[in-house]
Amino acid sequence: MSYCLGMRLDEGLIFLSDSRTNAGVDSVARFRKCFVYERPHERVIVILTAGNLAVTQAVIGLLEESLEADEPESNIMTTPSLYEAARLVGRAVRTIHDQDGEAMRKHGADFNASFIMGGQIKGRRMRLFQIYSAGNFIEASEETPYFQIGETKYGKPILQRVVTARTPLNQAVKCALVSFDSTIRSNLSVGAPLDLVVCPVDSQTVALRRWIQEDDPYFRHLRKKWGEGLTTLFQNLPDSWEE
Amino acid sequence: MSYCLGMRLDEGLIFLSDSRTNAGVDSVARFRKCFVYERPHERVIVILTAGNLAVTQAVIGLLEESLEADEPESNIMTTPSLYEAARLVGRAVRTIHDQDGEAMRKHGADFNASFIMGGQIKGRRMRLFQIYSAGNFIEASEETPYFQIGETKYGKPILQRVVTARTPLNQAVKCALVSFDSTIRSNLSVGAPLDLVVCPVDSQTVALRRWIQEDDPYFRHLRKKWGEGLTTLFQNLPDSWEE
Repeated sequence: MSYCLGMRLDEGLIFLSDSRTNAGVDSVARFRKCFVYERPHERVIVILTAGNLAVTQAVIGLLEESLEADEPESNIMTTPSLYEAARLVGRAVRTIHDQDGEAMRKHGADFNASFIMGGQIKGRRMRLFQIYSAGNFIEASEETPYFQIGETKYGKPILQRVVTARTPLNQAVKCALVSFDSTIRSNLSVGAPLDLVVCPVDSQTVALRRWIQEDDPYFRHLRKKWGEGLTTLFQNLPDSWEE
Repeated sequence: MSYCLGMRLDEGLIFLSDSRTNAGVDSVARFRKCFVYERPHERVIVILTAGNLAVTQAVIGLLEESLEADEPESNIMTTPSLYEAARLVGRAVRTIHDQDGEAMRKHGADFNASFIMGGQIKGRRMRLFQIYSAGNFIEASEETPYFQIGETKYGKPILQRVVTARTPLNQAVKCALVSFDSTIRSNLSVGAPLDLVVCPVDSQTVALRRWIQEDDPYFRHLRKKWGEGLTTLFQNLPDSWEE
């Protein structure tokens, strides 16, 4: 399992992903799930991946190969729009499905992969997409400004309570970290280090990238304060119908 | 989807279940998922059900029929132990599987049902079991004093933080209600009214049964205070690495 979260807020884009992969509990490894394609001030495109690691690595491999492509639409660094970039990722997933899907099915393996892709190209608006294993996709909106993939449930309640398109970047990063804290506590297959990318609107640049270890002072402090605060909050709630 | 929660604490047993069932979003109905078999001061047995409603109703139907059975082991009101009662439920699930499993498979329906069963028989200890659709089961322990079935994830973090076997009954009921609040907010297929049953240890009696509507004053107050408290707690967390 993985957990990845992308947000498209008025102030910019935020991407956060864990780094644990597992094929059974006896085969746990660490892989980055966040891939950044950036030409500072001109374009920034970030892709987060969840699902079968062989599938997601093959898709990213195809995209990396596309960097050599001459036709602008086929190269993620020259494609004219984020929409075309999402189609490029979708086509790559379909290519890998054509290549490996049948063999995987024969071995009882699900062709299961999902992607969050967002960014901005100079002169155009920020966009954020979620791409399915069928290669089709949806786009984040004013009403739903974030996407989660992988182990989404434990970390969803706090996002639902806090995050709107209006949320400032620092508050949203804080909320994302709390969301990951709940997930890490509840699902052993999601784990630090976390990979954080922040791209302010109209900068077409990664303003902050941070590889957050378990012992990161801010993350550790957040987790401690949040845990203590929840316990106190819970204890202070009225205890029964009689109170 | 459903959400049901059973706890076996030093002070007694707690059972909480929602009442929403759905077969698609256009077929939502209300059914009780909590069944109580009680002879006050002699025995109390409570069963919670989740999964395919036709399966769970058929299983409960068989158990109701068993109330006529002459052999003590086959009658949930005379079976000599909770362990035998869990086996009785398991056998009922297997009987329904033999009867309906193949036809369901032909129609692409999963034979999916799970049960939480707990109680106490005079002179014996309280026990709590989770019974799978294969009819086998596990028992709650000192280390894992509660079981969840159905939509378990949204409501798990607060249970993990708060509940141990030592938790007093009123605190555990409060925690169960907060756990249901998170679940109801995140999954439309889980909904009030909630069905609460509390059986203090060595009483073999339902000391409290409450059918908790959406507008129940205590539940509403808890939800409001919890929501406001979370927002305040979140706002008071440090905002970034720089603070």
